[in-house]
Amino acid sequence: MQPEQLKGLLEQVKNNDITVDEAVERLRHLPYEDLGFACVDHHRQIRRGFPEVIYCPGKTAEQIVEIFSSLARKGNNVLATRAEAEVFEALAQTGRFPQARYEKAARAIVLEQKKLEPSKSVLPIVTAGTADLPVATEAKVTAEIMGQRTELICDVGVAGLHRLLGQLEKLQKANVIIVVAGMEGALASVVGGLVSCPVVAVPTSVGYGASFEGLSALLTMLNSCAAGVAVVNIDSGFSAAVTATLISKKIEQKSN
Amino acid sequence: MQPEQLKGLLEQVKNNDITVDEAVERLRHLPYEDLGFACVDHHRQIRRGFPEVIYCPGKTAEQIVEIFSSLARKGNNVLATRAEAEVFEALAQTGRFPQARYEKAARAIVLEQKKLEPSKSVLPIVTAGTADLPVATEAKVTAEIMGQRTELICDVGVAGLHRLLGQLEKLQKANVIIVVAGMEGALASVVGGLVSCPVVAVPTSVGYGASFEGLSALLTMLNSCAAGVAVVNIDSGFSAAVTATLISKKIEQKSN
Amino acid sequence: MQPEQLKGLLEQVKNNDITVDEAVERLRHLPYEDLGFACVDHHRQIRRGFPEVIYCPGKTAEQIVEIFSSLARKGNNVLATRAEAEVFEALAQTGRFPQARYEKAARAIVLEQKKLEPSKSVLPIVTAGTADLPVATEAKVTAEIMGQRTELICDVGVAGLHRLLGQLEKLQKANVIIVVAGMEGALASVVGGLVSCPVVAVPTSVGYGASFEGLSALLTMLNSCAAGVAVVNIDSGFSAAVTATLISKKIEQKSN
Amino acid sequence: MQPEQLKGLLEQVKNNDITVDEAVERLRHLPYEDLGFACVDHHRQIRRGFPEVIYCPGKTAEQIVEIFSSLARKGNNVLATRAEAEVFEALAQTGRFPQARYEKAARAIVLEQKKLEPSKSVLPIVTAGTADLPVATEAKVTAEIMGQRTELICDVGVAGLHRLLGQLEKLQKANVIIVVAGMEGALASVVGGLVSCPVVAVPTSVGYGASFEGLSALLTMLNSCAAGVAVVNIDSGFSAAVTATLISKKIEQKSN
Amino acid sequence: MQPEQLKGLLEQVKNNDITVDEAVERLRHLPYEDLGFACVDHHRQIRRGFPEVIYCPGKTAEQIVEIFSSLARKGNNVLATRAEAEVFEALAQTGRFPQARYEKAARAIVLEQKKLEPSKSVLPIVTAGTADLPVATEAKVTAEIMGQRTELICDVGVAGLHRLLGQLEKLQKANVIIVVAGMEGALASVVGGLVSCPVVAVPTSVGYGASFEGLSALLTMLNSCAAGVAVVNIDSGFSAAVTATLISKKIEQKSN
Amino acid sequence: MQPEQLKGLLEQVKNNDITVDEAVERLRHLPYEDLGFACVDHHRQIRRGFPEVIYCPGKTAEQIVEIFSSLARKGNNVLATRAEAEVFEALAQTGRFPQARYEKAARAIVLEQKKLEPSKSVLPIVTAGTADLPVATEAKVTAEIMGQRTELICDVGVAGLHRLLGQLEKLQKANVIIVVAGMEGALASVVGGLVSCPVVAVPTSVGYGASFEGLSALLTMLNSCAAGVAVVNIDSGFSAAVTATLISKKIEQKSN
Amino acid sequence: MQPEQLKGLLEQVKNNDITVDEAVERLRHLPYEDLGFACVDHHRQIRRGFPEVIYCPGKTAEQIVEIFSSLARKGNNVLATRAEAEVFEALAQTGRFPQARYEKAARAIVLEQKKLEPSKSVLPIVTAGTADLPVATEAKVTAEIMGQRTELICDVGVAGLHRLLGQLEKLQKANVIIVVAGMEGALASVVGGLVSCPVVAVPTSVGYGASFEGLSALLTMLNSCAAGVAVVNIDSGFSAAVTATLISKKIEQKSN
Amino acid sequence: MQPEQLKGLLEQVKNNDITVDEAVERLRHLPYEDLGFACVDHHRQIRRGFPEVIYCPGKTAEQIVEIFSSLARKGNNVLATRAEAEVFEALAQTGRFPQARYEKAARAIVLEQKKLEPSKSVLPIVTAGTADLPVATEAKVTAEIMGQRTELICDVGVAGLHRLLGQLEKLQKANVIIVVAGMEGALASVVGGLVSCPVVAVPTSVGYGASFEGLSALLTMLNSCAAGVAVVNIDSGFSAAVTATLISKKIEQKSN
Repeated sequence: MQPEQLKGLLEQVKNNDITVDEAVERLRHLPYEDLGFACVDHHRQIRRGFPEVIYCPGKTAEQIVEIFSSLARKGNNVLATRAEAEVFEALAQTGRFPQARYEKAARAIVLEQKKLEPSKSVLPIVTAGTADLPVATEAKVTAEIMGQRTELICDVGVAGLHRLLGQLEKLQKANVIIVVAGMEGALASVVGGLVSCPVVAVPTSVGYGASFEGLSALLTMLNSCAAGVAVVNIDSGFSAAVTATLISKKIEQKSN
Repeated sequence: MQPEQLKGLLEQVKNNDITVDEAVERLRHLPYEDLGFACVDHHRQIRRGFPEVIYCPGKTAEQIVEIFSSLARKGNNVLATRAEAEVFEALAQTGRFPQARYEKAARAIVLEQKKLEPSKSVLPIVTAGTADLPVATEAKVTAEIMGQRTELICDVGVAGLHRLLGQLEKLQKANVIIVVAGMEGALASVVGGLVSCPVVAVPTSVGYGASFEGLSALLTMLNSCAAGVAVVNIDSGFSAAVTATLISKKIEQKSN
Repeated sequence: MQPEQLKGLLEQVKNNDITVDEAVERLRHLPYEDLGFACVDHHRQIRRGFPEVIYCPGKTAEQIVEIFSSLARKGNNVLATRAEAEVFEALAQTGRFPQARYEKAARAIVLEQKKLEPSKSVLPIVTAGTADLPVATEAKVTAEIMGQRTELICDVGVAGLHRLLGQLEKLQKANVIIVVAGMEGALASVVGGLVSCPVVAVPTSVGYGASFEGLSALLTMLNSCAAGVAVVNIDSGFSAAVTATLISKKIEQKSN
Repeated sequence: MQPEQLKGLLEQVKNNDITVDEAVERLRHLPYEDLGFACVDHHRQIRRGFPEVIYCPGKTAEQIVEIFSSLARKGNNVLATRAEAEVFEALAQTGRFPQARYEKAARAIVLEQKKLEPSKSVLPIVTAGTADLPVATEAKVTAEIMGQRTELICDVGVAGLHRLLGQLEKLQKANVIIVVAGMEGALASVVGGLVSCPVVAVPTSVGYGASFEGLSALLTMLNSCAAGVAVVNIDSGFSAAVTATLISKKIEQKSN
Repeated sequence: MQPEQLKGLLEQVKNNDITVDEAVERLRHLPYEDLGFACVDHHRQIRRGFPEVIYCPGKTAEQIVEIFSSLARKGNNVLATRAEAEVFEALAQTGRFPQARYEKAARAIVLEQKKLEPSKSVLPIVTAGTADLPVATEAKVTAEIMGQRTELICDVGVAGLHRLLGQLEKLQKANVIIVVAGMEGALASVVGGLVSCPVVAVPTSVGYGASFEGLSALLTMLNSCAAGVAVVNIDSGFSAAVTATLISKKIEQKSN
Repeated sequence: MQPEQLKGLLEQVKNNDITVDEAVERLRHLPYEDLGFACVDHHRQIRRGFPEVIYCPGKTAEQIVEIFSSLARKGNNVLATRAEAEVFEALAQTGRFPQARYEKAARAIVLEQKKLEPSKSVLPIVTAGTADLPVATEAKVTAEIMGQRTELICDVGVAGLHRLLGQLEKLQKANVIIVVAGMEGALASVVGGLVSCPVVAVPTSVGYGASFEGLSALLTMLNSCAAGVAVVNIDSGFSAAVTATLISKKIEQKSN
Repeated sequence: MQPEQLKGLLEQVKNNDITVDEAVERLRHLPYEDLGFACVDHHRQIRRGFPEVIYCPGKTAEQIVEIFSSLARKGNNVLATRAEAEVFEALAQTGRFPQARYEKAARAIVLEQKKLEPSKSVLPIVTAGTADLPVATEAKVTAEIMGQRTELICDVGVAGLHRLLGQLEKLQKANVIIVVAGMEGALASVVGGLVSCPVVAVPTSVGYGASFEGLSALLTMLNSCAAGVAVVNIDSGFSAAVTATLISKKIEQKSN
Repeated sequence: MQPEQLKGLLEQVKNNDITVDEAVERLRHLPYEDLGFACVDHHRQIRRGFPEVIYCPGKTAEQIVEIFSSLARKGNNVLATRAEAEVFEALAQTGRFPQARYEKAARAIVLEQKKLEPSKSVLPIVTAGTADLPVATEAKVTAEIMGQRTELICDVGVAGLHRLLGQLEKLQKANVIIVVAGMEGALASVVGGLVSCPVVAVPTSVGYGASFEGLSALLTMLNSCAAGVAVVNIDSGFSAAVTATLISKKIEQKSN
């Protein structure tokens, strides 16, 4: 599907290294593993720069264990998000992944079996309040398994602006910043207005009634008067971390 | 309906100053004037401290002129909000209100025929952007016809926080502040976090698509992490001004 | 960040009382305490006239206990809202706050260690129904820890208007009134139409299906035809109380 | 399709008055007239007690004229709602309906060619404001063409309760009341709480931004704490009038 | 508050039967009983034709028992809706209301201590499906405690129209009909199109995902192309029953 | 109600085979069975080609058992959807349906007592992720009890397009395809763009916060830029299966 | 991209009929024509069975003319939907497409330059009201340009069920039916409950306020209690026609 | 407000280069220019790396001309977005900005008076359809005035995937990609799944009814199953361009 791969394959066919039927087969079946209930995308590491990640809700513990095993067999680091403690227990009981650990605050299962070169830059993950920590922690765990160093800056919401200003130097040095905020989500705009790097904003479902499960913070962030703010799904620390890490990687890659 | 009035009336009945039937009549018919298509509430000035105001949309020019006349006859100041220029022209053509003026930016018709004592305090009306000016001007006109002095502080949104900080001293002196903001509406929280007086926040319908005609700013303001912020209807400079002026009046009244 | 403070600091620098680096440090680190997962804003009492309040949802019991301790150390009164009974038990087990009490109806933890001068005025907190009581009680507890005297007026919704009219005299004497109502939330408009002081309206999530968790009452209150009504978040007795108390304080402050 | 008719038809078949094929034909084709673009339901008068009414939006002037003619041919009164002035002109130009008149405020075309016995009772149509008049007038025109006498009671919204109380006697005598209100729509609950008859509530799209084109008033009315209030579509004076008149007719019918 | 009562009172004052102060007192305190957390509206029976009903959600069992006792003391029938089984147990344990019974399907507590004359007419309560039965049962219990005879017609939704047609005769005889339907709620329109009496429609929260907790059925019913359909709140069998019974009573009252 | 039946009945009446009263009776009572709380539509098999299916939510276990029995007595296959395990246990305890089985993943109870001719074609049921499997399984069970052969193709969402392309041949052979997807639901458009048969799309409630319980996927599918995609209710594997099977049956029926 | 094509291409490479670079070029550039502002998908006819259709909103007249020309050059029939009259005039002025015609009611431009074999079956397009005709006409035009014969059945909504029953025979013979309805959209369920073929439902934006531009009808149709109903976008006669025609073609194709 | 600036200022004070009062003045008034109705943020260029941009809606032509002049005086490039043609004419008539040009498709006014070094990288701006071009052009104009080279790739939506695959090589080389899509917005997920760089997604308001003015595409993009996709406001090409350019600049800056 990627031009280079396709070209290589066509060359092999031309040179009679493989038959036409073999080429078609290879194109169709190679890059993923069909478990019946899941098609594990082993090709994602090559294509996107990070392996497939297991989103647990709606999957049975048995299914998660099998997908986890399939991914782990390739030697990559493995991440399962939104995992209940029972899922980790089911995984632990197999005895196959003694290195796997459960990050309770982030509800994530992490298996680091390949040591990645840590990034030069540090990614600030800023939260408006303490209640935004679970989402921020999911972002932290996700970024770190992709090799990105992070720093949590907690509870610096706009109700007490000086707390944020005290962290300004760190923020102004960053390549990209993650801002995690519920309630009215104004922190993203305020941070965005103070720095020259892009901001990835995560609305959270923290708040009183009219936060409507994160809708309020989501709309605030989308309507940010400070340009340079892009938004991910409500409570999706995972998605913010992948976006921010992809940005950060591009920067470090180019600067080598 | 008000205990004092009721008591007074009952006394008159007891003293045979009026008959029972007259008393019932008075209770029913006195405090408003029935124009057929409108019941002008002349009693509002006494009960609430400011006269009835004409909200123009959905009324014909003829109806507005008649209600205007009914209110003006009592000698009070008269305000008509959301008035198209044609309405003012219809009013002008009657030749009856040479003092009436049309405030274009606010789309308001103003008739000041009774000079009110200007308030001691000044009410700051703060806007996030220039596009919020029509709503802020409606607030300004409304407050002033109620005798409240005001000061417009324009375009100090959170994308450039230093513009707001430059106005901080004025804001910290105020009894109450009106904040007018569209887009993400974060200014209300930021102002609310910096002052010790109540903030009346007006969301505006200014913004790109996902502002959903002011819904975004409305939710932001309702979810403000800075307590002490109360919210009025989208684009309703009028409503904010009445609330803020009532607060301000209570303060000046008590401090005499 | 406040002009006066900044000016004072600059004077100290000029007089060589402190070095430039010390001044920068002071500006950044002084007014809050960083607990890692929370930045407790000890400066809020000075800036806003009331201390930071702990909003419990999304925080662990351990985090709440630490923030509570940090605030209590300053000698201020401490309030934690939306606290489950387990949180209070965790706090009680530390043995450090024997005076702290749990207000069950309001789901609030209250520590009064500084006796505030009680306000001269009494703040009426009016509910449409008995089911609105938990929200009204949160408002009551919040106002009282800020030194504001209150009176609950319960279950006077518009389905039986005479119940409200019986309380009219009290309402007409108030500086500001809190109205708490779910279902259709019409009480705020009716009260607003009868008094000359501002009304702070709290929509509640009480009601049948199409109340949509308080959305119905929220929209009603925002659209109130009685000007002078400002609205806070759904079920947020806390926010209403802060707003109303700030108004009330301004009045009593001026009238001294 | 109605048991009696079906029974009659079956009797005719049995008696050989008509053939089986004729019976099937009659069942299928009798009660409506197919104009190609419309199936005019001439049977509605018998089945429901009032003739089909033409809802104009989305229909061309030509289509409306043809449907109007089809209904008029049967000798019934004809009503076309939401008709722009151009539609009436097109109708007038045919010269076929000299008695037809255009009710501008209601945007309705009315043809009264059959004098109905006027109802004994009078239906009060109450509006919160003057801007609700167009909807109230649609209700008035609709009720009257069905023979129901009406009385408009305008601009008695809850911002000045005494205006409503002045009309209480009339309301307490009614068999059923229509309440028309925009903005927060609280009037329906207040009226509902004061009378012993059912209330048909019509939310209107009158109001500032957060009225969301009538959604606010709609939700208010659905959530009315005063039982006995039933609601029709936003701005649908027509629908309210039909419901109220059906109720009224049942009452007068039984009391004969 | 009612003109007749007011007039009577004024007469008494004039005749010196009571003092002015007594009259004011009477006006304020007579018609309800203040329990502190609730103002029981004993006057509602006179004003509206049915006693106040206890809506249980958000009230504690203790509060419900007290309000129940207050209402029962007047000798009226008492109804508590949305009552969990525990509430009934708390009531039973007081031993004070041996006649009270718990209607499980409707989640209602019923105390019939005054035998009402049963209505002549029968009110059909029609459901689209079996899952709509709890709401329909609430309607049935409510109507019956107001003296209205009812008949449940279950599971005749539009997926099998012949089931409805089989009940047509009953429906065409009714004074008013309640239609209870979830999912797409089309039954209300279909019934409305077949009868000449008003239809009170109750949307229910029964359905797959996009029923959005009853919103789908609610909108369907509001937009009914069959005029004469009025709508009450989602799942509110209670509200439908009160409306329908008020209609029915007016009819029977007039026909005597 | 069906023309042919009606004609037959009329013939019988004409021939005096049955009386008129009997005919009316037959028309009304024949095609369903009234259980009091449910009208089981035995006629549906003839009219629509598949028997009535029991949607369990909101029904008591007793009601479900009775409806199940009523349907089973006719000798048809029986399906109950959204059945909790307890419902199946209640059914099993009756001992009357030893062949009934519980499909746990689909939450369906299946009784196959009549062997249907399996379809020639195979219906592909494609899911975007593993978490969509419960909905896909409901579709599978439903189609199969109607005699339609199926094939599940799991976890081929657009995040790894090559997984889908590997299945392209199967999809391009199909008569109709079911696509089940949550989150952003883009799979339906992508499949729709690659095949020449219609696609029945089922949005699922799988996803992070802003999926709003399936709303996101629903809107995506409705707005599909690939024409030929039609949509059913959120999570309604049942509805998709009936639609797809009706299409498939029409095709096989005609091709015989 | 299609397996067969890919295989063919690989064979050519193997046989040295084309070079590897040529093959890659062909794969990339062959199936569409890049006009700069548009990539015309000439391959769609082969892949999907009908050519690309031009959706006009948001495109300039110049762009539409160019895309139209590009499609016409291939000799296929061309369809442009939602075309304003000006667009057709711009096209006519080029003088290049004398056969093109403008379907005013459907707002569609149609160029039939290839005579398709008319389908054996007739597709019924049923509307609830006359105002739904523009959408139904778009469906008609779309189906016919794909070779599908159609029949419009207008104005048979559920307010007068007998009008629908009169058309029952036609509907019961169809392979698939399109139902077009606004307001409450109940017609889709009623038709769905009476036939054994699939129904493609199109909600329209026809209706009073709470139809919310078609949302009401959309939800109704998605929640249809009659299985076998699938839904397309609001007002999208085009999309319904493509889906229905694809179904119909599959049937006729198989039955040859 | 920025630590470095603050430190520098404090040093000046210490050295007696400026007085304390001057320092305070400078802090407050320096970085913006107060036009009365607008506070032009000249400091933004330094703080954020790009100058303030004029969002035209809600501003009068006079106001825009003045703000434009204020920004132009500083010698920077100036951009005004969402500008109607009349605004450009007003600007042109001043004769002051002969170099300013109007970009019609983007509705933007551009003044390039400072030649920026063009970026090394090229930013792909990909659209799903031709109707998305206005938004894409706004992105293009915005990026280019910030010195970022761009390439438009138009009309490669998922209804014809091969069009996108033909552009794959370009996309896989990019540092960051902007994807502009309306209707179902699926293109963002598909692109996101094929590349290793971040994707900035812009939902557009293009589409049939249920696109709800861009809500559908917005939700799709937020729920993208392909991580690495971040979203900006509906139709906000401007916001996407700023975010993407900030990312791109960080990369080029580091790689020097």
